[in-house]
Amino acid sequence: MSTAVTTRAADTAAVEGDLGAALLAAFEGPHHQRRSAGRAAFPADGMLRDPALDMQQARAWTLERLHTLVEAGVGQAIVGVERATADTQIQSLIDFETVAYGDLSVAIKSGVQHGLFGGAIAGLGTPEHHQRFLADALSLRTLGCFAMTERGHGSDVASLETTIEYDPDADEFVVHSPRRSSAKTYIGSAAAHGELATVFGQLVVDGAERGVHCILVPLRDAEGRVLPGVTIGDNGHKGGLLGVDNGTIAFDHVRVPRGMLLDRFGSVDDRGRYVSSIENPNRRFFTMLGALVRGRICIGGGAAIASRRALSIATRYADRRTQFRHPHSEEETPLLDYLAHQRKLLPAIARAYALGFAQNELIEAYGTVSSDKDHDARAQRALETLAAGMKVLNTDFANAAIQTCREACGGAGYMSENQLTQLRADTDVFATFEGDNTVLLQLVAKGVLTDYREVWGGLDRLGLVQASARMVGSAVIERTGAGLLAERLVTTARRKGDSAAFYDRGWHAWMFEERERHSIDSLARRMRAADRDSFDAVNAMQDHVLFVARAHMERVVLDSFIAGIENCADGAARQTLEELCTLFALTSLESDAGWFLSHNRMSDARAKALRRQINQVCHDLRPRAIALVEGFGIPVDWLGSAMLAA
Amino acid sequence: MSTAVTTRAADTAAVEGDLGAALLAAFEGPHHQRRSAGRAAFPADGMLRDPALDMQQARAWTLERLHTLVEAGVGQAIVGVERATADTQIQSLIDFETVAYGDLSVAIKSGVQHGLFGGAIAGLGTPEHHQRFLADALSLRTLGCFAMTERGHGSDVASLETTIEYDPDADEFVVHSPRRSSAKTYIGSAAAHGELATVFGQLVVDGAERGVHCILVPLRDAEGRVLPGVTIGDNGHKGGLLGVDNGTIAFDHVRVPRGMLLDRFGSVDDRGRYVSSIENPNRRFFTMLGALVRGRICIGGGAAIASRRALSIATRYADRRTQFRHPHSEEETPLLDYLAHQRKLLPAIARAYALGFAQNELIEAYGTVSSDKDHDARAQRALETLAAGMKVLNTDFANAAIQTCREACGGAGYMSENQLTQLRADTDVFATFEGDNTVLLQLVAKGVLTDYREVWGGLDRLGLVQASARMVGSAVIERTGAGLLAERLVTTARRKGDSAAFYDRGWHAWMFEERERHSIDSLARRMRAADRDSFDAVNAMQDHVLFVARAHMERVVLDSFIAGIENCADGAARQTLEELCTLFALTSLESDAGWFLSHNRMSDARAKALRRQINQVCHDLRPRAIALVEGFGIPVDWLGSAMLAA
Repeated sequence: MSTAVTTRAADTAAVEGDLGAALLAAFEGPHHQRRSAGRAAFPADGMLRDPALDMQQARAWTLERLHTLVEAGVGQAIVGVERATADTQIQSLIDFETVAYGDLSVAIKSGVQHGLFGGAIAGLGTPEHHQRFLADALSLRTLGCFAMTERGHGSDVASLETTIEYDPDADEFVVHSPRRSSAKTYIGSAAAHGELATVFGQLVVDGAERGVHCILVPLRDAEGRVLPGVTIGDNGHKGGLLGVDNGTIAFDHVRVPRGMLLDRFGSVDDRGRYVSSIENPNRRFFTMLGALVRGRICIGGGAAIASRRALSIATRYADRRTQFRHPHSEEETPLLDYLAHQRKLLPAIARAYALGFAQNELIEAYGTVSSDKDHDARAQRALETLAAGMKVLNTDFANAAIQTCREACGGAGYMSENQLTQLRADTDVFATFEGDNTVLLQLVAKGVLTDYREVWGGLDRLGLVQASARMVGSAVIERTGAGLLAERLVTTARRKGDSAAFYDRGWHAWMFEERERHSIDSLARRMRAADRDSFDAVNAMQDHVLFVARAHMERVVLDSFIAGIENCADGAARQTLEELCTLFALTSLESDAGWFLSHNRMSDARAKALRRQINQVCHDLRPRAIALVEGFGIPVDWLGSAMLAA
Repeated sequence: MSTAVTTRAADTAAVEGDLGAALLAAFEGPHHQRRSAGRAAFPADGMLRDPALDMQQARAWTLERLHTLVEAGVGQAIVGVERATADTQIQSLIDFETVAYGDLSVAIKSGVQHGLFGGAIAGLGTPEHHQRFLADALSLRTLGCFAMTERGHGSDVASLETTIEYDPDADEFVVHSPRRSSAKTYIGSAAAHGELATVFGQLVVDGAERGVHCILVPLRDAEGRVLPGVTIGDNGHKGGLLGVDNGTIAFDHVRVPRGMLLDRFGSVDDRGRYVSSIENPNRRFFTMLGALVRGRICIGGGAAIASRRALSIATRYADRRTQFRHPHSEEETPLLDYLAHQRKLLPAIARAYALGFAQNELIEAYGTVSSDKDHDARAQRALETLAAGMKVLNTDFANAAIQTCREACGGAGYMSENQLTQLRADTDVFATFEGDNTVLLQLVAKGVLTDYREVWGGLDRLGLVQASARMVGSAVIERTGAGLLAERLVTTARRKGDSAAFYDRGWHAWMFEERERHSIDSLARRMRAADRDSFDAVNAMQDHVLFVARAHMERVVLDSFIAGIENCADGAARQTLEELCTLFALTSLESDAGWFLSHNRMSDARAKALRRQINQVCHDLRPRAIALVEGFGIPVDWLGSAMLAA
């Protein structure tokens, strides 16, 4: 099987038509130039892995490929907070997107090395740490691990068991895994390559527990031998990402100098006392985790690229692959002419556009907030909520859409030479790492509810729900920036009521707002009425919490789409985006039709007609299908799909 | 990574509690004894493949394992039609289920060898063929291929391009692939092992095209060398089923003796004339395909076993894996205590039960119809419709449920040592092979509509829809056998109307019936009104056609569940099955809530309360979760999941 790919100038190759080029420019919005530059710099030769490589070969290939990327300058944007600008911060996100055009093991290995390992040093360390460790991390002179998850605790980071205990006599920290369940696991680069790890554990100073902190711990010497006190295990074969050497790490009283603690937010001073600029331990914990928000944004962005690659493959195939002859025709019909096939691919394309516009705003917000040392807690929370929500939406969508694409290509879709099964296998875990999606949705709901009530308990799921029981008042959807246009449209649509047309954007925005507002209100009501000490009473609302989170995110995404269209000057592209936005909105409404009907937000007639309207938009968009995927900006050669070359 | 599994008596190991044992007996119903015997005979040592094996190793392992199975007597039930009894026919299906407890590459390789290759000889050949070829096929002395799909045509079997031309001078057939698109592809056992193939192509006798027929063509000699005129290609690495050597086969005027044509339904006589007992070429085509219905039943059954394996793994894990501490407790909470987790796994378990009961009836129907030489066309069509529908439901469900299980196990679910990703990757293609699910649903709709109008055109999608335009009258849901009980319940429920309780089985059955009846009626109305010559007009109904097929199958499944409960004598098991049936019914209703509301089949209040009711049933069932998966009959050891052993 050949996975050879020739280098071509990305944007010229991807966009053969004017419409495709205009869609791409609009779709990538404020980050178009930067993304184009990333594609131009991306070393496309050998970008895809031979799926037949075994695990050891895949790991070696992945490391080598990582070096190629670094030589091309990708991954150099990570800087310590003192040097961070909106430009550096945004570039670090775009770098990950660019890498995600190629093999996803390489993307994740790069994410571990630069985004997580480098990012922890940059975000949790001091200028001293940055000077001492960052350049080597970025250049791959030091291969790193990000050791957070443990066997016993993944989502529940606050309960990590690893201890980082200060020994004042030696002026050292002792890193230790007290139990089998304390061992770090699923740690990228641990099994084979990692030399230095950012290790998360409970800091203990003078007998007092100070909560989760992060410390640098060497794992291997220059010859790759595992250091004394460190035990490495290999997670072995996985469902995908075979090129990433995930492993376990256990520490047996490993000593490291005091200076290895990444102590931007909490430190031990020269006299052996714990000092922190953040007094509240809970706030300190969340501040530290917040400094790591980039990882989540990258995973969402990478999943989005993977979805676009799959949709590009399946759409191009469906456009040319014929099956069954029309009784009155000599010609067989292309798959994409069938309504059933259109309904598989076109709403997915529309959603990919929608999520892309929202991701643009997330990127923008990250650039602003993370480079502003004086940003307030609310801006940080809004960023984290949006990052968590977009991570969930992008990764859930990737898994669903890539699977749809695989099936839409029949047997050909199952052959590795056509790339879809690798994309599917590699992105699978995106739904549960860097935050389990179900847990993240609860974080989103927490963020939404906190906008009405500032005081919250811990991150634990029950604390979240209990705190909101103290909420009062009715939900008001607060919009800023991109949402202002949607807000105006809603106001107009409310006046029209149910007579609004199906393609009336104000009606869409209104419905999305109603779904969010009503679900928040009713959740708050239930919480006020619930017995907060009863696990059952609180637990019984969990599905409602998830619904609120999804309703909120769908509304945010639609707002972004609306704003994105407003910024598109090209007439034809704008018209196409309008249709895509309608398709996105109608399919979102259709998926919750039961809710809209039972809550009297939609008439029976309108709900019945939704399906017909969606079919009509699919039918209208079908002739432009190739331009739609050209708008994703991925050259056919980069797709590496044998059936498209045949 | 260890995949070693020790042999244990299956049913005692699987079922530790009384409830689990009683559930298993009820769930397996009339086939319980036979399935238990299959499990007892199944050679469990080494049943799971090391996921780290490369493709060549995996193929060799799979072939070896196939020999182990044959030595254990699995796969011997295939017999020629003249010897077929209900017993032999049912046993051939149970054999496949049994094999599916182990590695699925082995199951598929066994399915190719016994079910498809052997099955084609048994179903399309004459007693002479059976005597000459069948024993060697079953014993693996002759390794076989089933060569139907071509590069150019998969779902559209009638348009196959391979030619089988009779040469009267030599009294031979000439098998030929005229174009690149005519080459057979994705053919199991072609790439490495196949010696003899059942090849489907267009029969040409004396210049006249006689439609698709099947002929035996040798591919390799005794030393494994590919024979002259045959070109073999390797499909290479795939998204799963790595142990199956799928390949391409092209023929360059390959000559085989006249006796190699599997000519039960169409033959060339001693004087070189084409003769057939079925005059209508269209009916002949469908009769031949109908003889192959076993493959579809097996794929559905295998997917069902895979789903049960995954649900057993994820449920057992969720029952013991804890995460997050309740604020008022020292103990962390098991995942399965969270509502969100219950809603992932318990409705899936309920659906697995529902589909299992329906599969039991399909198996029964296959035994009856396929062993009865005098069965009428209507019985055959009913069998094919049910087989197609159950194949779709089982395989769609497997892909969704196994993915849910993978995600529910977080990072652990992604590690190959826990088996979920292999199950997911291997069953993926089940959705598109042995009939693409979207095409099969159209076949189901055709079957449903044909009950009101006997005259139909070809299998092509447009012919299907056009023919139904000639339909008259209103849909009447005809129930027989298992459905009679449901029919009585519906009659009672109609009298109660909307005051029926949520757990009222008659209300469920009534709603399911309404969904089916109304969607058929409205489709028929649209078809009568449509311009049959317009591709667009006909195509615009495709999603409606799919809805009808799903609505029909959901109703059939519920009917089977109801009948299955009636046959359960154990009180506790029966009570549990009642709750599972309610959960299945309510989640099916919830997924179409928009339809029920907009068609005035459900009140707003009832629709709103659905979610609460489903949550309640989940909550009630949670303490019995382990018994529920014990009812699937799979011993923990057979699951081969490292995290369950730890």
